[in-house]
Amino acid sequence: MLGVCYYPEHWPKARWKEDARRMREAGLSYVRVGEFAWALLEPEPGRLEWGWLDEALATLAAEGLKVVLGTPTATPPKWLVDRYPEVLPVDREGRRRRFGGRRHYCFSSPAYREEARRIVTLLAERYGGLEAVAGFQTDNEYGCHGTVRCYCPRCQEAFRGWLKARYGTIEALNEAWGTAFWSQRYRNFTEVELPHLTVAEPNPSHLLDYYRFASDQVRAFNRLQVEILRAHAPGKFITHNFMGFFTDLDAFALAQDLDFASWDSYPLGFTDLMPLPPEEKLRYARTGHPDVAAFHHDLYRGVGRGRFWVMEQQPGPVNWAPHNPSPTPGMVRLWTWEALAHGAEVVSYFRWRQAPFAQEQMHAGLHRPDSAPDQGFFEAKQVAEELAALALPPVAQAPVALVFDYEAAWVYEVQPQGAEWSYLGLIYLFYSALRRLGLDVDVVPPGASLRGYALTVVPSLPIVRGEALKAFQEAEGIVLFGPRSGSKTETFQIPRELPPGPLQALLPLKVVRVESLPPGLLEVAEGPMGRFSLGLWREWVESPLRPWLAFADGGGALYREGRYLYLAAWPSPELLGVLLAGLAQEAGLRPVFLPEGLRLRRRGPWVFAFNYGPEAVEAPAPEGARFLLGGKRVGPYDLAVWEEA
Amino acid sequence: MLGVCYYPEHWPKARWKEDARRMREAGLSYVRVGEFAWALLEPEPGRLEWGWLDEALATLAAEGLKVVLGTPTATPPKWLVDRYPEVLPVDREGRRRRFGGRRHYCFSSPAYREEARRIVTLLAERYGGLEAVAGFQTDNEYGCHGTVRCYCPRCQEAFRGWLKARYGTIEALNEAWGTAFWSQRYRNFTEVELPHLTVAEPNPSHLLDYYRFASDQVRAFNRLQVEILRAHAPGKFITHNFMGFFTDLDAFALAQDLDFASWDSYPLGFTDLMPLPPEEKLRYARTGHPDVAAFHHDLYRGVGRGRFWVMEQQPGPVNWAPHNPSPTPGMVRLWTWEALAHGAEVVSYFRWRQAPFAQEQMHAGLHRPDSAPDQGFFEAKQVAEELAALALPPVAQAPVALVFDYEAAWVYEVQPQGAEWSYLGLIYLFYSALRRLGLDVDVVPPGASLRGYALTVVPSLPIVRGEALKAFQEAEGIVLFGPRSGSKTETFQIPRELPPGPLQALLPLKVVRVESLPPGLLEVAEGPMGRFSLGLWREWVESPLRPWLAFADGGGALYREGRYLYLAAWPSPELLGVLLAGLAQEAGLRPVFLPEGLRLRRRGPWVFAFNYGPEAVEAPAPEGARFLLGGKRVGPYDLAVWEEA
Amino acid sequence: MLGVCYYPEHWPKARWKEDARRMREAGLSYVRVGEFAWALLEPEPGRLEWGWLDEALATLAAEGLKVVLGTPTATPPKWLVDRYPEVLPVDREGRRRRFGGRRHYCFSSPAYREEARRIVTLLAERYGGLEAVAGFQTDNEYGCHGTVRCYCPRCQEAFRGWLKARYGTIEALNEAWGTAFWSQRYRNFTEVELPHLTVAEPNPSHLLDYYRFASDQVRAFNRLQVEILRAHAPGKFITHNFMGFFTDLDAFALAQDLDFASWDSYPLGFTDLMPLPPEEKLRYARTGHPDVAAFHHDLYRGVGRGRFWVMEQQPGPVNWAPHNPSPTPGMVRLWTWEALAHGAEVVSYFRWRQAPFAQEQMHAGLHRPDSAPDQGFFEAKQVAEELAALALPPVAQAPVALVFDYEAAWVYEVQPQGAEWSYLGLIYLFYSALRRLGLDVDVVPPGASLRGYALTVVPSLPIVRGEALKAFQEAEGIVLFGPRSGSKTETFQIPRELPPGPLQALLPLKVVRVESLPPGLLEVAEGPMGRFSLGLWREWVESPLRPWLAFADGGGALYREGRYLYLAAWPSPELLGVLLAGLAQEAGLRPVFLPEGLRLRRRGPWVFAFNYGPEAVEAPAPEGARFLLGGKRVGPYDLAVWEEA
Repeated sequence: MLGVCYYPEHWPKARWKEDARRMREAGLSYVRVGEFAWALLEPEPGRLEWGWLDEALATLAAEGLKVVLGTPTATPPKWLVDRYPEVLPVDREGRRRRFGGRRHYCFSSPAYREEARRIVTLLAERYGGLEAVAGFQTDNEYGCHGTVRCYCPRCQEAFRGWLKARYGTIEALNEAWGTAFWSQRYRNFTEVELPHLTVAEPNPSHLLDYYRFASDQVRAFNRLQVEILRAHAPGKFITHNFMGFFTDLDAFALAQDLDFASWDSYPLGFTDLMPLPPEEKLRYARTGHPDVAAFHHDLYRGVGRGRFWVMEQQPGPVNWAPHNPSPTPGMVRLWTWEALAHGAEVVSYFRWRQAPFAQEQMHAGLHRPDSAPDQGFFEAKQVAEELAALALPPVAQAPVALVFDYEAAWVYEVQPQGAEWSYLGLIYLFYSALRRLGLDVDVVPPGASLRGYALTVVPSLPIVRGEALKAFQEAEGIVLFGPRSGSKTETFQIPRELPPGPLQALLPLKVVRVESLPPGLLEVAEGPMGRFSLGLWREWVESPLRPWLAFADGGGALYREGRYLYLAAWPSPELLGVLLAGLAQEAGLRPVFLPEGLRLRRRGPWVFAFNYGPEAVEAPAPEGARFLLGGKRVGPYDLAVWEEA
Repeated sequence: MLGVCYYPEHWPKARWKEDARRMREAGLSYVRVGEFAWALLEPEPGRLEWGWLDEALATLAAEGLKVVLGTPTATPPKWLVDRYPEVLPVDREGRRRRFGGRRHYCFSSPAYREEARRIVTLLAERYGGLEAVAGFQTDNEYGCHGTVRCYCPRCQEAFRGWLKARYGTIEALNEAWGTAFWSQRYRNFTEVELPHLTVAEPNPSHLLDYYRFASDQVRAFNRLQVEILRAHAPGKFITHNFMGFFTDLDAFALAQDLDFASWDSYPLGFTDLMPLPPEEKLRYARTGHPDVAAFHHDLYRGVGRGRFWVMEQQPGPVNWAPHNPSPTPGMVRLWTWEALAHGAEVVSYFRWRQAPFAQEQMHAGLHRPDSAPDQGFFEAKQVAEELAALALPPVAQAPVALVFDYEAAWVYEVQPQGAEWSYLGLIYLFYSALRRLGLDVDVVPPGASLRGYALTVVPSLPIVRGEALKAFQEAEGIVLFGPRSGSKTETFQIPRELPPGPLQALLPLKVVRVESLPPGLLEVAEGPMGRFSLGLWREWVESPLRPWLAFADGGGALYREGRYLYLAAWPSPELLGVLLAGLAQEAGLRPVFLPEGLRLRRRGPWVFAFNYGPEAVEAPAPEGARFLLGGKRVGPYDLAVWEEA
Repeated sequence: MLGVCYYPEHWPKARWKEDARRMREAGLSYVRVGEFAWALLEPEPGRLEWGWLDEALATLAAEGLKVVLGTPTATPPKWLVDRYPEVLPVDREGRRRRFGGRRHYCFSSPAYREEARRIVTLLAERYGGLEAVAGFQTDNEYGCHGTVRCYCPRCQEAFRGWLKARYGTIEALNEAWGTAFWSQRYRNFTEVELPHLTVAEPNPSHLLDYYRFASDQVRAFNRLQVEILRAHAPGKFITHNFMGFFTDLDAFALAQDLDFASWDSYPLGFTDLMPLPPEEKLRYARTGHPDVAAFHHDLYRGVGRGRFWVMEQQPGPVNWAPHNPSPTPGMVRLWTWEALAHGAEVVSYFRWRQAPFAQEQMHAGLHRPDSAPDQGFFEAKQVAEELAALALPPVAQAPVALVFDYEAAWVYEVQPQGAEWSYLGLIYLFYSALRRLGLDVDVVPPGASLRGYALTVVPSLPIVRGEALKAFQEAEGIVLFGPRSGSKTETFQIPRELPPGPLQALLPLKVVRVESLPPGLLEVAEGPMGRFSLGLWREWVESPLRPWLAFADGGGALYREGRYLYLAAWPSPELLGVLLAGLAQEAGLRPVFLPEGLRLRRRGPWVFAFNYGPEAVEAPAPEGARFLLGGKRVGPYDLAVWEEA
C-alpha cells in the first residue's frame, strides 16, 4: 500500500479538504502527520491548541485515509529550551549547541524526558482512541545530524550510572578496560569522564562503552514514549522511521520495542554520499545505486522482525546532498516497486507538497509548491493502479543471510587500524556481490537463527557472543566469515586465544598478525578459483588447514573447514563474485551473473526484475513464464514481474 | 594619477624628507597614511601624540603631495580591548577572538562605536581643515579576515532590534521565515538567536536576515565615521578601500555614504585563490588572470557611481596567498594602465617601502627594505612619465551591463543546493566571456537604470525587487537572465507563482524543477547555435515558448521572448561565447574572438589592448589607427593604445 | 647491545620470571620499565605501592638484565588532575583538554612541577642506588600529541616572565617585534597574550618567541627531573626518548642536560606520514624509506653529542599510522643493524609482548599477546647472535656535516611564504641526496665546529647567529648554503643588509626578491653541471659573482665564492645529486651513485651495505674485501659488512 507525509500546519485550512480528496483519488491509504508540530500544538507552555489537528485528522478520516501520528519530540519549541537550557546537547568539541534547526535535545536530559513524557501523554490521551489513527511514529529519525552522542554533564552522570550497572565494581571496569595501561586506573565510577577532548586517543573500551551507552539512551528515550502510547492507544501500532547508512544507533535493539520498523529512502542522496568509485557515482547519479535501497529494505525488514515500511520515499530531487539530481523518469515507480518486492507493507512518499519556505524548500514533493502534481505524483499513481490489480504474495525467507552488527560498526569506528577500513563499505561489498548474482538476502543480527539459509555471510563480526556462536553452530548452510571476525572480546580486548576467538570452535585457525595497506599496494592471491589482486587488509594465519587461496609467500587468504570458511583479507569485488557464486552453487542455489544495472528480487513465487540501466535488457525469466508486469524485455528504468513455475 | 601607501611611523623621521622628495620625483601625487596608527597616536588612553603625524604630513605637503588620511579604527590598541573586552568579536564557533592581529572588533559593540567616534572626531578636528589632506579613508578593508559577521551577545541584541524594525510584529517574522516548519515559531523577538551552532542547518530566511543585518552594521559603523568627517572636514572626500572577491558586505549600499569607491588590487594572490582550471592558474600565476583586476575595476566603478581609485596596487610578490610569485616584469605597468583604462582616478601602490618587520615583512613595496628602488618603482615611474604626456579622455558608459547583487551571493551561500554552485564563479564566467569578445562592461546593481545598454546580462538574480523589475522593463537592449533568477522572494521563499517569479512579467515561463549535478555529469543541449555539453545545474521549464536550445529529452536550456532571454542551465564557457557573441552582434556591437591573453578596453575614443600572454600579438586596431602608446604589434606583457577613428 | 621495553604491570607476576629468563636467553641486555606506571605506584595520593616494582626489578636483575627506569610523569593519574585541574593543558583553540589519554599536562603548571618533583624524588630515592638500575629515562616522548605548546593562563603568565627576562624593557620588545605595525604596541609585559585565536595572523616575532618559550619550558621541566636524579642516583645515566620528524622541541638544547640521546624508531609509520611521492610511499611501505631511520640516527647522535640509543625499535606492524603494514621479513634485523652502523649503543625493541588491551593493543611486540615469539623476536635474536661474534669499531666523524636547526623549523612554520615550503622536507632532500651518493653524514646544530668536514651542507638557516657564522668561517671544507639562509634576524626581521645577512661575510651577494610558486610551475636553470627544472621557490640575487647555474632570464640559481656556495632556489633531487657529487669529488670524497634502495654506512673501518629493495644487488666492496657479515651479493632486505682495506 501507499502513503504520504503531510503537514497540514504548513497550509491554509482551506486547502486540506481538496488535498485529502486527491490523496484518496491517487490511491494513497496512509498519511503521516504531526511529527514536527510541538510549537503549534503547545504555542505557550501548558497552553494546548488541539483544534487544528483535530480538524486535520477529521478531514483525512473523512476521505477514508488512515493516519500515522508522529510524536513531536524531534523539535522542542524555543520556550522549552529557554526554560530548560540543559536540554540542548553538547558536541564532541565541548560546545553547547543552539536552537534553530532540529533535534536540539540530549537524550539523557531528565528535564527533556519529563517534557517528552508530558507531551506524548497528552497526544496519546487525545488521539490514542481515534479510529482514523492507525498508529504512531515516535519522534523522527533518531540520531540525525549526529545527535546520538552528546557530551553534556547529564550524559556524563548517566554514563557513570550505566557503567556501574554494567561492571558492578570499579575493579571490574579497570580490568575490562585494561587501565593498567597509561596510568588510567580509576578509583571509583565518579572519576570516569566522557571520552572526548583527550590529549591522546581515548581507551577503546571506554569509547565502545560510551557508544553502547549512547545507543541505549536513545532506546530508553524511545521506550518511555512507547510505554505511554501502549497505555493510551491500545491496538495502535508503533514504529519509528530509521535512516540509511546510519550506525550510531542499534536499530535491532530499539526495534524490539516497536511493532515494525520504518525507514526513509533517499536513493540519490545516499548514492552521492556513499563511498563508490567515481564512475559508478556518475552512472547512478539519477537512479541511485541498484543496491542502495535494496540493502536497507533487507536490513530494516530484519530490524522489524519481518515487517517494515518505507516511511519517506524520495519523490524527486532533494535538498540535502552535495548534489541533488532529478531522478530519471520512471525511478519513483521503480523505487516503490523495489520496496514492495522486498516486503515493504507501505511505501509513503515524502511529502505531499513541496513547502516553499524554511529549510526543506528545495525538497520536491508529489506536488509542486503551486499544487500542480509533479512527476512523482504520476508515478505513485501508476503504482497504485498497478497494485490495485495485483495481490502480492507473502515474503518468504531468503536463501542467503547476511549478518549485520551495529556493535561491529562501533568497534571499527573506534579502531579502524587502516584509514580505508569501513564496516559499511565491507557490508555493501558483500551485499552487492550477492545481489549481482541474483540472490535474495535477509539481513540478520548476530545471534539470529540461521536455520533454513543455504548460505550465510558474515562480512565481519569482531565480537562473537555466545548466542552468535550457537547460531553459527546450528546454521544449516555454508557460513563465510570475513576478516577481523572474532578479533575482539566483549570488553574490546584481543581474545586470549587470539582471533578469531570463539570461532576457533568452528575453524581451526589462529590469526597471528594483521596489516593494513595503503590503496594501490596489491598482492596477488591464487588458488583453484583463480588469481585475485587484494589490498587494504591482510591477516597471517596459523592453521593445520591448507588455504583455498594463498599469497605468493604462502600465507593463506581463505580457509575452509567443512561448511565454514574464513577470509583472511579484504576481498575484491572480483573475488567475492567468484567465491560467492561457487558457494551458492554448492549450496544448491542458482546464481547468475546479472548484467550491470539489472537486479532480481523474489516475493513468494513472483520474481521482480529491476533495470537501473539506460539500455533495455533481457529478463532472466524461464521459457513461458507468466508476466504480471512488463515482459521479457525490460526497458531502461523499468521493471518486470513474473511468476516462477 | 598615481599614489602610494606610506607608513611614516615605521621609519625614522630622518628618512621622511628624502622619501617625500623621491615620491614627487617619481611622479606620485597622493600618499595614503595613518590607517593603522591608533596606538601611536594615542599610546595611553586619552594621551594623544599628534606631533609625529603633524610632522609627517608637513613633510609630504612640502613636496606638494596630497594626503589621504586613514581613520585608524581597523586596529584598536591593546589598552582599548583590555578596557572594553566586549570589543573583541566572537566567531561562528562561539569563540571570543583575541588581540594580536587586526580587525579585532565587533561592529555592534556600543563601547567600540563610542571609541571610534572619539578617535575619528579627534582626528577630523585636527586635520579636517589641513590643506594637504585631500580626503579620508575610513577604517581599512571592512570585513577582511571574515569580520563582517560576529556572534557576540551585542550582535544578538542588535539583531533582535533590527528584526523588530524590519518585521514590526513577531507574527510577521514567523510568517516570513515559515517557522511553522520544525516548530521554530517565536513568541517574541527576544527569543530569536544568532544562526550558528544549531544542530541542523538554520532556517535560510533567518540566515539571510542575519547576513543583511551584519552588512548593515558595517554600513552604520562607517556612516558614524562619515558623519563626523563631513562635519569636521568639509570639502574633503571620503572613501573606503574595498577588497577583491568579497561579498559579505554590500559595497553598493555602503558606498552611498562615500564620495567614491576604492579597492585593493592584488592580481596574483586573487589568481592563486580563485577557482580557475589548474592549467589557467599556472598560465597566469605571474600575470594574474586577465579579467581579475578588470572585473573589480568595473565593479567598483559601479559601486562608486562612476568614480573609483585603486587604493592599493600590488607592486611585486606579496605574502598572504598560498603561493606568492614575482610578477613578470612589465606587469606592474600593465596593471596600472588596465586600472586607468577602466577609469581609475588614482592608482596607489602598496607600499612605498617593504617593511622588514611584523606580519607583512614579505610583502614587496616600490622599494626594498634597504630603500633601493625595486622593479615596481621603475614601472610606476614609467607610467607616471607616460601619463604626463597624455590627457586621458573621460570614461563613457559601456555597451554592456552586468547586474551584480550582493544579496544574491548571500542567498547562494545560504542555499547553494549544489556543492559547486558559486555566485562569484558564475559572475566571472559571464564577465570573462564578455571580455574575451572585446566588450566593455559596466557592473551595476539591480535596480540601476539599464537605459543605453545594448546588452544586459544578469548571471543570476534570485530576489527580484520591484525596482529591479522596472529597470528590466525599461531596459533598451537585450536582457539575458541566468539560472535561478527570480527563484526567491525577499523573505527567502519560493515565489507563489514559481520561479522566475516577477520575471514572468517579461518571459512567459515557469521553472517547475531544478537539479544540481556532480562535476563530470554532462548533458548535450542543442539548437541553432550549436551543440554544448552542460552540467552542474539544470532547470525544467514550462512555457509556451519554443526553446532556443534543448536537451535530448526535449527540455529547454534557453528561452527567448522578444529582447528577454532566460538560461535554464549552468552555462559552459563555449556556450556563453557563442551566445553572447550572437546577442552582441544582434545588438549592433562588434564582438571579436580575442586571442587567449589579449583584452581590450575603451576609454572615450581610446582603445587599450593588454597582452597578458608570453607571445606578441596583433592588436585589432583598424587600418591607420593613431597609436598613443605602443603599436600594432603588442609585445608580451605589454600594451597598446590607439584612438578610434 | 640490545634491549627491550617491558611493562611488568600489564602481566601477572607469575609470568615475570619466565619473561626475564627468555630476555636473557635472547641476548638482550637492557630493559626499560616504569615510564607510565604512576597510578600503579601511587594509587591514592600519598599512598605508594613500591612492592610490585621492587619485585619486578629484582626479577630482571636476577637474570643479569640492566634496567632503564622511566620517570612516570607522562601520565599523571586521574586523582592528580582532579585535585589540580590547572594541570590539564589548553589547546590552540582555547579548549581545556581532558583526562583519558596521555601527556595531559601543561609544562608550565606550578602544581604539576611540584607533583613531578615529588614523584621523581620518591622514585630516585628508592631506586637511585640500586645496582640493577643502569640509568633513567625522563618522562616519555616530550611533545607527543602536540603537547609542547599549551595556551593556558599559567603559560601566559610564564611567557610574560620569559619575555621580560629576554627583553628587559617593553620598549625593547616593541622594537624587536616591530609593533609599530598594526597598532600592536604594548605598554608593559602583562599586556602580552599568547599568540592564538587572533583575528588576523599573529606577529611572527611574537609567534617565534612563543615557540622558543614553549621549547624552553619543556627543557626546564626536564631539568627539574635531571637535578633530582643527579642528586639521588649518582653514577646512573639519564636520557630521554625523542621522536621522529618532530621539531616543536629543541632536542639539541634539552639534551645538554642528558648523558646521551635516545629516540623511538618506527620506520613504517614515518614513511606513511612523511611527504614522499606516492610511488615511493608504496615502494617502501613495508621496509620504510631507506633514509628515514638513518637520518634520525645521525640527528640524535648529534643531539647526544656522539652518543645515542634507539629506545623503541619497531618490531612489527604498529597501530598509530593511517596504514600499518607488516614489515617485510628481515627488516627488523636490517633496521637494528642500520642503527648499530650509525653508532647506536643500544637498540631496544618496543615491546616485549603485545598487550591485548587498551590503546596500543594493535601494536606488535617481540611476542604475540599469547606469548608465542613473533617474527621480530627471531630477528632480534639473530642480531644478538651476530653481535656476539663481532666487536664493533668506534664511530668516526663523518666526512659530511649537515646543519640542522630547530629554530629554522619554527621560523618556517611561522612564515612558510609558500604552501609547500617544508623545512623537514628540504632537510630530507639534502640528506637523502647525500646518502644516495654513499656519503656518511653528521647532523650538527648551527655553531658546532665544522672542522674536519670535507663538505658541509646547510639546507636552510634563516637565523645565523655569531657562533654559527664563526663556525662557517672556520670550516675547513666546502660549505653549501640553501635558500633563505640568513634571511631573518634573531627577532624575526629581514636583515638590514638584506639576506643572506651575516653570510655576506662569506659570499658577496644580496637576495633582493623571493617568490614561491605553485607545484607544476617549473623554470629551467642551466650551467656547466647541466639543465635542471626547478620550482616552488626562487630568489633574485645581486652579486658581482657570475652564477654557476642561471635561469633563462639571467638570474642566478647558484653562486660560489671560494669554498662557499649559495643556492638561490628550491633544488630538485636531480640537481642535488649532480651538485653534491661534484662537490664531494672536489672535496676528495668518493661519491657513488648507488642503486635505488641500497645504502652504505661506515663505522670505523667497517662498511655496511643495506638493501631496502626487492632484488639482490652487488655491494660496492673493493676487490678482496673481508666480509664480516654477508657477501658481495646482498640479497633483498639483507645487509653485508666488510672491512675497508
